[in-house]
Amino acid sequence: MTQAAQKLNEEKVFKDPVHRYIHVRHRLIWDLIGTPEFQRLRRIRQLGTTFLTFHGAEHSRFGHSLGVYEIARRVIDIFKYRNNWDDSETMIALCAALLHDVGHGPFSHSFEKVFGTNHEEYTQKIILGDTEIHRLLERQGEGFAEKVAEVIGKTYPNRLVVSLISSQIDCDRMDYLLRDAYFTGVSYGHFDMERIWRVMRTVDDQIVFKFSGMHAVEDYIMSRYQMYWQVYFHPVTRSAEVILTQILHRAKTLYQEGFQFKYTPHPLIQIFDGNMTLHDYLKLDESVILYFFQVWQEEKDEILSDLCYRFMNRRLFKYVEFSPSLIHSKDQLALAFKQAGIDPRYYLEIDSSSNSPYDLYRPGEEGERQPIELLMPDGTLHELSQESDVVGSITGMRRTDCKLYFPKDRIDELPKHDVNRKKIKNLLGI
Amino acid sequence: MTQAAQKLNEEKVFKDPVHRYIHVRHRLIWDLIGTPEFQRLRRIRQLGTTFLTFHGAEHSRFGHSLGVYEIARRVIDIFKYRNNWDDSETMIALCAALLHDVGHGPFSHSFEKVFGTNHEEYTQKIILGDTEIHRLLERQGEGFAEKVAEVIGKTYPNRLVVSLISSQIDCDRMDYLLRDAYFTGVSYGHFDMERIWRVMRTVDDQIVFKFSGMHAVEDYIMSRYQMYWQVYFHPVTRSAEVILTQILHRAKTLYQEGFQFKYTPHPLIQIFDGNMTLHDYLKLDESVILYFFQVWQEEKDEILSDLCYRFMNRRLFKYVEFSPSLIHSKDQLALAFKQAGIDPRYYLEIDSSSNSPYDLYRPGEEGERQPIELLMPDGTLHELSQESDVVGSITGMRRTDCKLYFPKDRIDELPKHDVNRKKIKNLLGI
Amino acid sequence: MTQAAQKLNEEKVFKDPVHRYIHVRHRLIWDLIGTPEFQRLRRIRQLGTTFLTFHGAEHSRFGHSLGVYEIARRVIDIFKYRNNWDDSETMIALCAALLHDVGHGPFSHSFEKVFGTNHEEYTQKIILGDTEIHRLLERQGEGFAEKVAEVIGKTYPNRLVVSLISSQIDCDRMDYLLRDAYFTGVSYGHFDMERIWRVMRTVDDQIVFKFSGMHAVEDYIMSRYQMYWQVYFHPVTRSAEVILTQILHRAKTLYQEGFQFKYTPHPLIQIFDGNMTLHDYLKLDESVILYFFQVWQEEKDEILSDLCYRFMNRRLFKYVEFSPSLIHSKDQLALAFKQAGIDPRYYLEIDSSSNSPYDLYRPGEEGERQPIELLMPDGTLHELSQESDVVGSITGMRRTDCKLYFPKDRIDELPKHDVNRKKIKNLLGI
Amino acid sequence: MTQAAQKLNEEKVFKDPVHRYIHVRHRLIWDLIGTPEFQRLRRIRQLGTTFLTFHGAEHSRFGHSLGVYEIARRVIDIFKYRNNWDDSETMIALCAALLHDVGHGPFSHSFEKVFGTNHEEYTQKIILGDTEIHRLLERQGEGFAEKVAEVIGKTYPNRLVVSLISSQIDCDRMDYLLRDAYFTGVSYGHFDMERIWRVMRTVDDQIVFKFSGMHAVEDYIMSRYQMYWQVYFHPVTRSAEVILTQILHRAKTLYQEGFQFKYTPHPLIQIFDGNMTLHDYLKLDESVILYFFQVWQEEKDEILSDLCYRFMNRRLFKYVEFSPSLIHSKDQLALAFKQAGIDPRYYLEIDSSSNSPYDLYRPGEEGERQPIELLMPDGTLHELSQESDVVGSITGMRRTDCKLYFPKDRIDELPKHDVNRKKIKNLLGI
Repeated sequence: MTQAAQKLNEEKVFKDPVHRYIHVRHRLIWDLIGTPEFQRLRRIRQLGTTFLTFHGAEHSRFGHSLGVYEIARRVIDIFKYRNNWDDSETMIALCAALLHDVGHGPFSHSFEKVFGTNHEEYTQKIILGDTEIHRLLERQGEGFAEKVAEVIGKTYPNRLVVSLISSQIDCDRMDYLLRDAYFTGVSYGHFDMERIWRVMRTVDDQIVFKFSGMHAVEDYIMSRYQMYWQVYFHPVTRSAEVILTQILHRAKTLYQEGFQFKYTPHPLIQIFDGNMTLHDYLKLDESVILYFFQVWQEEKDEILSDLCYRFMNRRLFKYVEFSPSLIHSKDQLALAFKQAGIDPRYYLEIDSSSNSPYDLYRPGEEGERQPIELLMPDGTLHELSQESDVVGSITGMRRTDCKLYFPKDRIDELPKHDVNRKKIKNLLGI
Repeated sequence: MTQAAQKLNEEKVFKDPVHRYIHVRHRLIWDLIGTPEFQRLRRIRQLGTTFLTFHGAEHSRFGHSLGVYEIARRVIDIFKYRNNWDDSETMIALCAALLHDVGHGPFSHSFEKVFGTNHEEYTQKIILGDTEIHRLLERQGEGFAEKVAEVIGKTYPNRLVVSLISSQIDCDRMDYLLRDAYFTGVSYGHFDMERIWRVMRTVDDQIVFKFSGMHAVEDYIMSRYQMYWQVYFHPVTRSAEVILTQILHRAKTLYQEGFQFKYTPHPLIQIFDGNMTLHDYLKLDESVILYFFQVWQEEKDEILSDLCYRFMNRRLFKYVEFSPSLIHSKDQLALAFKQAGIDPRYYLEIDSSSNSPYDLYRPGEEGERQPIELLMPDGTLHELSQESDVVGSITGMRRTDCKLYFPKDRIDELPKHDVNRKKIKNLLGI
Repeated sequence: MTQAAQKLNEEKVFKDPVHRYIHVRHRLIWDLIGTPEFQRLRRIRQLGTTFLTFHGAEHSRFGHSLGVYEIARRVIDIFKYRNNWDDSETMIALCAALLHDVGHGPFSHSFEKVFGTNHEEYTQKIILGDTEIHRLLERQGEGFAEKVAEVIGKTYPNRLVVSLISSQIDCDRMDYLLRDAYFTGVSYGHFDMERIWRVMRTVDDQIVFKFSGMHAVEDYIMSRYQMYWQVYFHPVTRSAEVILTQILHRAKTLYQEGFQFKYTPHPLIQIFDGNMTLHDYLKLDESVILYFFQVWQEEKDEILSDLCYRFMNRRLFKYVEFSPSLIHSKDQLALAFKQAGIDPRYYLEIDSSSNSPYDLYRPGEEGERQPIELLMPDGTLHELSQESDVVGSITGMRRTDCKLYFPKDRIDELPKHDVNRKKIKNLLGI
Repeated sequence: MTQAAQKLNEEKVFKDPVHRYIHVRHRLIWDLIGTPEFQRLRRIRQLGTTFLTFHGAEHSRFGHSLGVYEIARRVIDIFKYRNNWDDSETMIALCAALLHDVGHGPFSHSFEKVFGTNHEEYTQKIILGDTEIHRLLERQGEGFAEKVAEVIGKTYPNRLVVSLISSQIDCDRMDYLLRDAYFTGVSYGHFDMERIWRVMRTVDDQIVFKFSGMHAVEDYIMSRYQMYWQVYFHPVTRSAEVILTQILHRAKTLYQEGFQFKYTPHPLIQIFDGNMTLHDYLKLDESVILYFFQVWQEEKDEILSDLCYRFMNRRLFKYVEFSPSLIHSKDQLALAFKQAGIDPRYYLEIDSSSNSPYDLYRPGEEGERQPIELLMPDGTLHELSQESDVVGSITGMRRTDCKLYFPKDRIDELPKHDVNRKKIKNLLGI
């Protein structure tokens, strides 16, 4: 039985550059923020390696999580004002908003790629497992933690609560676009969030948008489009990501091959061995990763130490478009790399950003993904891309940006007359 | 002989949230930014533990250093336009602006307190020692590095260059006020920087300000005053600082007493032993510190592990004003702590922020510190506090904020009837 | 009997650059905004002649009035959340906030000086007289208009409602500082309004501020101080004000002397005759004034046409400090002007901005003016200047800026050898 | 022979909310700003009737003109830095930028529609005619005014100078998008102007944009698209525009029919008679228009007084989409209006915003309009819509928004059983 949420005697606030203030009125929210699991988000950057491209992007998932909570709080207030909200869902929605990213690990993108972990699963494990967060949630009522986990897992019966946290225009996306724009300093990413809130309506447990607010929604989608291509998929960021992934690969391989590390990565042993517990996972953060990258510059394995040196000192890989002709000659290229003494398994990498944002707006394609529906003056619902020329035009397009990454410096250092040097340069067109 | 600075074929830029863009036009500047010593600043937060109070304050010294360079660049452009600038000093000034903080270590404030290091000295060592930065500077001309170091050390003959980097209203302070306000999100810290630039004049190698711009200067000083008391001296930040200092103390003491660490702090051994080289110093960053704080939560020494737990999970000390009556009863309090099993050497700490910003404006007090001079319409110079009511009023005041920090939770956990509990509570008035 | 305020079916909003959106939820507020008396505020600039100094300051009292209403609405929401507000006062407070400036005439400052009108009286007349506003207010309940007028007149029994609209830190001042800073583009005028709202408490029908928010209050007062001296009392604005006042004087004098205007100022006749009705007053706006200034450039009276030419084409008077020595020689100066053919009654004018903002913080001096009280942790109230060094320092100071305005061009045009030219130049020190 | 432009002893600045400061370094620019013809722009709103929809949009063409000048100044500085600019063109370009809108009349859109005037022609007349502006320009060198006029008229031989002032991405458009967004307060309209400047290149006297900056250009175009549909073509603004046009029509018709005005519109007589001189034109501003609208509320002609009342008090027309079925029944509707006593010539008006912004990007369509060209890495030029998916998608579309405006209140006031009332309501679907 869920208890009424206990109010704080006095509202607490966090100063936030994006929303001015984050307002906390319930003891549970306050206590959740204070848990070690949540505080750990301070040591995990919101945008992974992006800070190597946009130096302002050093903000952590901690602030973002507070921001998502705050947006949810304000939207729920608006829904309440319009009598569109069942107040018994408030605490579930607020907790889910606050905790939706709590399962993220350090540099999640690369980490998950190499170790097969999944941050959404970890979020649920943290909510349901042996953690302070779990204990606090259960104090609210038996089964409360389960409900919050269901919202994260999108299986919660009240679809409205789920939509608030994960849908086309949810509190998560609204916060990160504004926040990432703020910290990177780019001009993209701004949209009229308050207007979007005002035109939000609920129809059959679904969030829809009044037609009169279509342009604000359009603008949000264009902002997102620009943020993806200008910030999130920036080729320099991806270069750092490529190197980071290779370091983790190399370390794991070395460990499995019995390499004697000068600095043994204690906190990573379990994950190398494939038997990491939730408790082990929660000890990981970006300081741990960066510490080992720092000291591994002195390891004897040249690949590991070189890659760590590159990451720590921003000696990134260069890239060329991975054109059809290159696809054709990839094996040749790998061979030339090998013959030149540059291991292609670690120094020649394709990175593709094909999961482009337009897809997000192709209705019906990906399981639970819902199209954005506009509520027309006559009460009917029209899918956004049917009404908006701009969105219509980018719906259904799939833009893929595929690049080939490599250490140009290493190639330039090969002797001028080296056959492989010329071959590589020819094939890459550099 | 100093060479003419080589221009880049195409200007390079960094997107910066504070100055919009940082413009780099000289190869030397570009190369300096690329050195490991400079890249290391990405791993040292600009405001130390402030991010535990203002969650947005996660920005590093890297961005600030670029910002100081950019301000210097723009101010020099204005001076050039007015024919007030000797262009042969440009590269020296720009390098000094860029590198002025390169000697900072992780959490400098506490670090220097415990280990007696000095970041300004390290800045000079990095410029003059066996580093990439040094090699790049010397490529510009023999003795060039020495000149840059002199600007940092304030011994450079051209006082104008020195003033640009360190004086009452220098490029350093202008950047950090704006930048720290931006990242914390506070409303203080804004002032009309461009107007200040416009009213800057040079009189006898000194930077002075046209009287007509006095209000902009006033506003800058008030901004600074507010930033000091609202942000830099925030009592919660100082609580984190107290704990951090105690951790370093404890670790050093344990090491010196031969304690067997489960996780030996390899990168700190030399500093514990008092024989750290420049090379050792440059390997230190906040990831290293945070990594050990993370793993030391598992050390057997209860003080070390508890303090580390507190820092990592933001279980900070509470505080009371360190009032005269408390001063009187400090020994009693320490005794009660001891008897209650709470080591007062680590759990009872006075922190004083007495180096208040008003002092900065008391002319003549501290050696090289220059008062702010206004250039009056009749050509004479008047010291700012003589002309400005507002500044006059805060000049000569010395505001001291002295607080006593302690772990309130530990005291609350003592048995209700415990004599020391009552005594402590009485003495602290909590 | 006051009726419950009728809610709009759907909230209406105005896009506002300062508060993002102005939210209207009651039909009465919506209808009041739609009245001719309120729409007229669109044709009266918020800052009179300031647009001639800061070209962005072209904003009208219409937006400001909406802004004051919006701040009142938000503050009341916060008070309600804390159960510190009697909801039966809400509509009275909101109407008073919205209407507090509705009695302003064109260029009020000069207008009131010349014609002895008073905008606060007119606000009350509009609320109580034969107007659409009055009819709408009375529809809300008999005597409702009277209550709103009492709030404006500061005689309303509930002091809290009065304080909201007019006190040291009221909704009016909060809006205009932020709004005027926004439109002029100056960096002053920013303060943390939301923090001030959060630390507002009510003690015995008085608004006080929690001690913990003292710095936000300090910052507000410093912002205001800077806005006064940087914007509101700007000497160039005052020069335009001087000319405007002289035009009105001259036109009135000419009319009273029977001058045959080429363009008779129909809308001003009643005021010249001293028998203006409320209906006449409501027809006045800045277009009317500017129209006549435009056409009067062609009137035969040289003083009138010259002054109008000056105002319309920004040929403003210059100024010197009105120093003690000048006071002494004022008659001499007037004589020299006269002999040089420049009428000193219109071309030699002292303007003093002595009603300086510090006075506002001298407790107890001016009748209803209340000091700012801080609510200390122990529940007592301390007057702000006792606690704040900065405010303390500017309390009790009276800064006066007294300037003498004159048409420098006319003096420069006098023949080089003209005795009066020399005399005037000597006396003025130009 | 053009003289070298005289520099001011000290740079002068205007505080500007959009560009922070407008910097004036040449005496000519300073003097031009001071002319009556330029000062008159203070009395002409930048966005005509838009302030009735967005109350912040009260800014005048004066600030915009300064802004265009400032952008031109900064862009030229960048071109100079890259040696892409012939400095002898600087003053011509700056003057053209400053003066490009000087020919605008009050509420130009409606005014030109009714009286057949053309503001671009007037800009040239002012530059070339008997004006202070002309005299100042000629002082700079014989034929200088002619050159400036040619830039405005797009016949100046140096196409680069012309492009700076009028092309797809010119200084005019850059300023107005940012400025109008600032004053209305909308979130649209922001784009990264500085990045656009940085990627501007000159190829054969044409301004092109480096491919790497394509996204900034895309963003500019999307901003513009949003500004057009969200702000410039706002249906409420157009309603006010419709009424304004009808007032001018009515007044002109009445004058031509010999109507005896109570308040004769002296400044408009010449234009009614079709023989307006430049001198007459320059006396017109929005105060003049608003003055007559104000007093005409008392004219005997009911149409004129009613329309004026509507405009002054914002009793605007309502609208419905002008659908195909409505087109069919327009005559019927007009007849029903007539029979109901509502003159359809003044109270039933179609307004179409078909000159949509996408057309601007259809290359080659409209005479001098140039497509936006991207400079590819290989040195070739590609037209923007070929490279940008987003722009490609909106190129060639023509969106038309056609609305039928009418006074809904008048129809609602008809007796319930009135045949025409029902007929009108049916036809309009209201």
